[in-house]
Formats: sequence, structure tokens, C-alpha cells
Amino acid sequence: MQRIRRGVCQAILINSGNANACTGSQGLRDARQVSSWVGKQLGIDKELVFASSTGVIGSPLPIKKIREAIPELINKLSPEGWMSTVEAIMTTDTFPKTEVETCHIKGKPVRLCGMVKGAGMIRPNLATMLSFLVTDVHIKAPLLQKMLERAAEASYNRVTIDGETSTNDTVLILANGRAGLSLSRMDRDGEKFQTMLSKVCRNLSESLVKDGEGATKFIEILIRGARGQEDARRAAYAVAHSPLVKTAFFGEDANWGRILCALGHCGARIDPNRIDVFFDKAPIVKNGMGVGARLEVKAGRMIKKKSFKVIVDLHQGKGQFSVLTADLSLDYVKINASYRS
Amino acid sequence: MQRIRRGVCQAILINSGNANACTGSQGLRDARQVSSWVGKQLGIDKELVFASSTGVIGSPLPIKKIREAIPELINKLSPEGWMSTVEAIMTTDTFPKTEVETCHIKGKPVRLCGMVKGAGMIRPNLATMLSFLVTDVHIKAPLLQKMLERAAEASYNRVTIDGETSTNDTVLILANGRAGLSLSRMDRDGEKFQTMLSKVCRNLSESLVKDGEGATKFIEILIRGARGQEDARRAAYAVAHSPLVKTAFFGEDANWGRILCALGHCGARIDPNRIDVFFDKAPIVKNGMGVGARLEVKAGRMIKKKSFKVIVDLHQGKGQFSVLTADLSLDYVKINASYRS
Repeated sequence: MQRIRRGVCQAILINSGNANACTGSQGLRDARQVSSWVGKQLGIDKELVFASSTGVIGSPLPIKKIREAIPELINKLSPEGWMSTVEAIMTTDTFPKTEVETCHIKGKPVRLCGMVKGAGMIRPNLATMLSFLVTDVHIKAPLLQKMLERAAEASYNRVTIDGETSTNDTVLILANGRAGLSLSRMDRDGEKFQTMLSKVCRNLSESLVKDGEGATKFIEILIRGARGQEDARRAAYAVAHSPLVKTAFFGEDANWGRILCALGHCGARIDPNRIDVFFDKAPIVKNGMGVGARLEVKAGRMIKKKSFKVIVDLHQGKGQFSVLTADLSLDYVKINASYRS
Repeated sequence: MQRIRRGVCQAILINSGNANACTGSQGLRDARQVSSWVGKQLGIDKELVFASSTGVIGSPLPIKKIREAIPELINKLSPEGWMSTVEAIMTTDTFPKTEVETCHIKGKPVRLCGMVKGAGMIRPNLATMLSFLVTDVHIKAPLLQKMLERAAEASYNRVTIDGETSTNDTVLILANGRAGLSLSRMDRDGEKFQTMLSKVCRNLSESLVKDGEGATKFIEILIRGARGQEDARRAAYAVAHSPLVKTAFFGEDANWGRILCALGHCGARIDPNRIDVFFDKAPIVKNGMGVGARLEVKAGRMIKKKSFKVIVDLHQGKGQFSVLTADLSLDYVKINASYRS
């Protein structure tokens, strides 16, 4: 975190299997040690090397093993190494997650590559969400940071598997300027890059939810008509985190009472008599009451799909918020009850 | 709720199977209708009859069926009817939950009976936590209300199965004065009654957790050393509601990293390097780090029991809070995924 603040980075050393978290001051020393070895062998300032870890919490980092591996890692560095990196940091993700995009700014191609692993407690034990992005545009750190925050707010910060966050969650973007093009403000060109960045982050975060622990459904919870955005956010997360809503979706049960109940205790200002709920475009609740058996059966069909939207209109104002989430399945419990043992 | 505010009640009509929630203005009319029928047949003011419902959300109350049953219900009223009432409102609780206590005040016996059903989404669909208490002491409504709030704060408000609350959660206490003894303030006699009331509520709420949906463990989460009580409360609920902590307990996995992780994102002020964690009396985390394999195995044995405590000392101050909870089991998902279908 100290090094991130400086805004300059030339290498990232990522290890999986050990989170180097809850390891006290020894853990900090170890992170400094391994990155200084990498810096030395790359011939760069050790302060330009970031260390990133994911895995089991509470065990010391096996630095001897890492030291021995560094020469080979450096030897294998290549522009084609992207996929091997994505796969190397996968731990128990079931598929590698990467996105590549190009856009043209002032006639020049600008490239952006992104990768992500784990998320919101996607497997295994407190799996960390690690995302790394690289681009060849030239752009100053403060502006790039602002753009990344904007993209992350609408992507990584809008996905939740089970409401848990990890000790090590990280999103990093590096820009090396190789495209021979410089962005210095949020003008039309800046917006063009922002659009690409936001799209890549959104795609990566969607793939996280699809690979969620035991997930059988990919669900967007969209709250609209809230008194403000904060109310919409609360309501969206209350529905997305409700174990009863999530198990109902796993069971393909159109149990709208559970959605209303989650809304009722989320703290947002609601009028139960004005709530409308839709599964995709099919209404299931109108003015806080069920739409009747025939229409409920029709809406119920929507949640039998692998992917669907739950749209809630609170009719209280203009606040809106959407999150992506998964269901709570038997496999989620099996995976998380048996990890480590 | 209008009637509760007046502080006087002579009869409660409780039905299970239908929550009469999300039924709009019709639902309110229905509740008034059934209670007015009861009032008429009992020969008392309808305003003195409370209506209480638990069951499926979103279906109209079958008032015709209720009307037909009222004469028999009134005919069967008797001081011995307590157990039948507990059983009648059980829905899918696996055992009836009732407590009876007597204490002596000024040489006279004062009795207190309490019952409870469902809880924090104990079965089935958004099962309501309904608790009814009766005593034969004479006591004014405002004082009794204060005592009940105090008791509820340390009992019903300290249990959580899955973080969900119901549309219909209710705790009611009635005092009829039959003991020929009056309490008018929080003196020594008042405290004696308070102690009995708190004990009964605590026992009832413990039985709720033991009968939690799919619960295989009965767990107390005790946070101490927090910067304040609010921080302690946040931390306790974050641990108690964490699906990862709950599944680890179901799997009897002493995965302390998940507890630290929940503490880390709960919003309470913590210093990760000062956190101690115990399973019962066995230490598992000291200064934010594992206590080592040998001691961890010892602590791990504690969570193989049906009932155990997780004690977290944040070493930040004097704030303390404790909640009772259950694990998250395969049966929880099975029960909640298949309800209604």
C-alpha cells in the first residue's frame, strides 16, 4: 500500500497458495524481501516492485521457495506470457478470466489487457479478488487512478457472491506509454479510454460472478425508484445478500415474499404498498402484493433460466443501483464446509 | 400496532399458515374483522383483541375459515390451554418452546409463562418470531413495556440464525393482576420481576437458536475489548452472519482466518495485530496470528461440540456484545430451496 501511493510500478510479483495475511510484522518483512530480490535481478529499484498474494491466511510466506523460483520467472518474462500468468494465479477458479480490448485514439491503436482471479469469496478459503490491467497508452497516475476508480465502482464494486470481502482484494492498472499517445485529461479521448476500461472491468467482474462458489445462477439485482442512491445501494445489497432469497433462486422458487422481506429490513425508506417487482420483464409484485397465480407462474419461468434480472421499483424517487450476484447452493456449503479438512 | 400503543389487551387471536403480510388494505380490514368477531363472542371491546399471524406472505387471510373456528376456540379457552396454544402456533418448529417461572415478591408467588415460535427465519418461509408472555402480577403498561424492552434487548435481539428478520416479528406480554400484588417502579421488587422476565426471555430465545433451520451447532459469539458497544455489536453480527464462518463451523473446521476476515470488513475499529480469539477457553489467535499447530488442534476440538463459544478480544476498549447463532448447513439450503415447491 505504501508503494501504491507513489503511483509508479514496474513489476508485480504474484503468488497463490499463501495470502501472507495475519502474519504480522514478519509478513511485511517477507513481502519487502521477495520484492527486493525481484528488483535486484531485474535491475530496477525494489520500490518499483509490488508484491501480491492470495491463498491461505495465517501461514508465513515460504520465501525460500520464492527466492529459488525468481530466476526462472524472470527468464520466462515475455509479451506472450499473459495467459500463463492468468493461469498461474488461478488457485481454484474453474476457468481463466481475461479480456483484451483495443480502441483508436487520434488514429492510433490503444490496447488494454485485463485479468482477474477469485472474488468475493469465490473459492477457496477467502479467495482474494486480484485484478491486473495493463495498457500501452501514456497517462499520469492521478488521472489513471480516477478512471480506474470510476470503472471499479461500476464493476468490481457491484458484484457480490456472499457479501464477504477478502484481506487482499486488489485492482491494479499499469500504463507504459508504448502506444506513443498521451492522455492528460477527461476530454473526448479520455472518455474513449474510460469507456474501454469500464467495459473490460465490467466483463471481468461478470466472469467472477459466473465462476462464483457453487453458483448455478447469474442474477442482476436492479433497484430503481429509491429515495436516493444510498437507499438503492442498501436495498440492492440486502436482496443480493439475503440467504433466503439466494436459496429460493437456487431452488427456482419465485418466492417474492423473501425479496419484500429483505427490502423491509434493509434500512432504505420504502412504502411496502408501492413496491413493484419484476423477474426480467415479467411482473411478480404490484403495489406490494402478488400479481396473482397466473402471472406469478409466468414470472416464475424467468428464474428457471441460468441468467436473469430482478427489478425492484420502490416508487420513492430516482435512486438506482444494480449488483450482480449468484445463488446460494448446496455446493456453496459443501465447498466452504470442507475446505482445509 | 395501533392497538399495542394503547397498552391494553384482553385476548390475542393467533393464526399460523398465513402471515397476512403484503396483503394491502384488504389485509388490514381482515385483521380488524377477525378480531372484532372474537371481541363480539367474548363480550369484550374489539379494540382489546390483538391479531397475530405467521405463515406464507402474500395470500389473503382465509377469514371465513377463521370465523367458523372462533366458537370452538372460545369454548375451549381454559387456564390449562397453554400447551395446546404453543403447539397450535408451531408451524414447522421441531419442538414446542415454553418456559414457566415463579418468584416470590413480598411473600406472594408471582408467575410468568412464556412461549415462542419460529425465529430469525427459522422454518419455514420467513417464519415469524412470535413470543407471548403472561404474568399474574399487577403492573402498569409503561413500566412493563420498559421491562420487556430490557429483557428483549438481551434475548430476542441477541439471536440470529441467518440475519433475516420477518414481517411479523412480535413479542407481547400481558399482566392480569391476579397475584394480588402491584409493581409500580424499578425498586428491589421491580428488579426481582425483571430478573425473572429476562431469564424467561433468554431461555426462550436460546431454544429458538437450537431449533434454527438445519442448525447443527449452537454458538455464542462474544466480542469484548471493542472501542464501544456499537463496535462490539457490529463485530459480533459480522461474525455471526458470515456465511464462510457459518459453513466452517458446520464443517467443524477451525478456520480462524474467516473470523478475522469478517472482523476486518465489519466497520468496527480494529487493529488486526491485537486481536485474540478463543474457542471456549482454548486460544486460537493471539495478536492477530495463529497460535501454532499444536494449540490450534486443541482449539479445533472445541468446535466439534454441539455448543461452544467464540470469544474475540479486540483490545481496543471496554465495549462488549454477544449474540447467539447457528451454523449454515446443507439442510439450511435444502429447507429453504425447496419450501413452497
